[in-house]
Amino acid sequence: MLEPVSVERLVINFKTLEEFKQFKNYGNQELSMLEDLQGNIIENDSVSPFFGIYYGSALVARMSLYRVDAKYDQYFDPPQDYLELWKLEVLPGYRDKGFGKKLVDFAKQYELPIKTSPLINSQGFWEKMGFHKAKYDMERDLGSNPLIWTPEGVTEKETSAFGNTQTL
Amino acid sequence: MLEPVSVERLVINFKTLEEFKQFKNYGNQELSMLEDLQGNIIENDSVSPFFGIYYGSALVARMSLYRVDAKYDQYFDPPQDYLELWKLEVLPGYRDKGFGKKLVDFAKQYELPIKTSPLINSQGFWEKMGFHKAKYDMERDLGSNPLIWTPEGVTEKETSAFGNTQTL
Repeated sequence: MLEPVSVERLVINFKTLEEFKQFKNYGNQELSMLEDLQGNIIENDSVSPFFGIYYGSALVARMSLYRVDAKYDQYFDPPQDYLELWKLEVLPGYRDKGFGKKLVDFAKQYELPIKTSPLINSQGFWEKMGFHKAKYDMERDLGSNPLIWTPEGVTEKETSAFGNTQTL
Repeated sequence: MLEPVSVERLVINFKTLEEFKQFKNYGNQELSMLEDLQGNIIENDSVSPFFGIYYGSALVARMSLYRVDAKYDQYFDPPQDYLELWKLEVLPGYRDKGFGKKLVDFAKQYELPIKTSPLINSQGFWEKMGFHKAKYDMERDLGSNPLIWTPEGVTEKETSAFGNTQTL
């Protein structure tokens, strides 16, 4: 039987950063955090954009979540605060237990639209979560392929694949 | 001996979009272009952000290039127009012939800083091209890992891995 698990905000300290190394999507963000921690630019146990699920004492799933201000919104109609979600990942051995869904459901609780631009081919998962590909807008999306989820009453902004292509 | 090749701007028509299918990084952007072309929202032979190299009659390498206005610049000091580069790809069988470098050199000609956020692990190539990882800025970079190249006299903007993390 699946034990009850909860999603918690992760604070940044050396222990958490060590646990992050288990995740495939460990990179520039974590290294910068580590440098800032080592250089005392940030304090131990600083608030981070990461949320995670512990299974026993092990961090087995995580995501980053950041609230983007309405003034930067280029995805939704009307423009509004939305959540950017990235680095959603469940460790091998802990998959197919609903941990990924648990994290996404946690994000949905805020009743704000959500945008994510997954790096790997995980579109099947996102579709199950109710996300769909945003209509591509060249000037806005450039090299990214955003997926979005909208709560009741929010629609996707109209876009154009070409926009006003500036000639170089 | 390597034949002389040149980099050309690609216009969007059904033939070019068909050729794009050979590239691994064919996705949302190309599909949107195809839809817009089929729906007569864009005209045949529209200017595109794509540049490519033909080898004989075959398109064997391509990239997208877009000039971002200084007012949106969050990467360079002082803020200035820069080029966003994405979807750089050389078809298998045509690699190690300098085509990737040719495309990057084409972009460098504009003497503007360049930013790219490669999806796959190609950092070795980018380092050879003189690019380096931008210092991670959470609010700016979110889930991306930008690499940048700067011409003489341009420096990277100072950033913080944490920014002003807003509490959700």
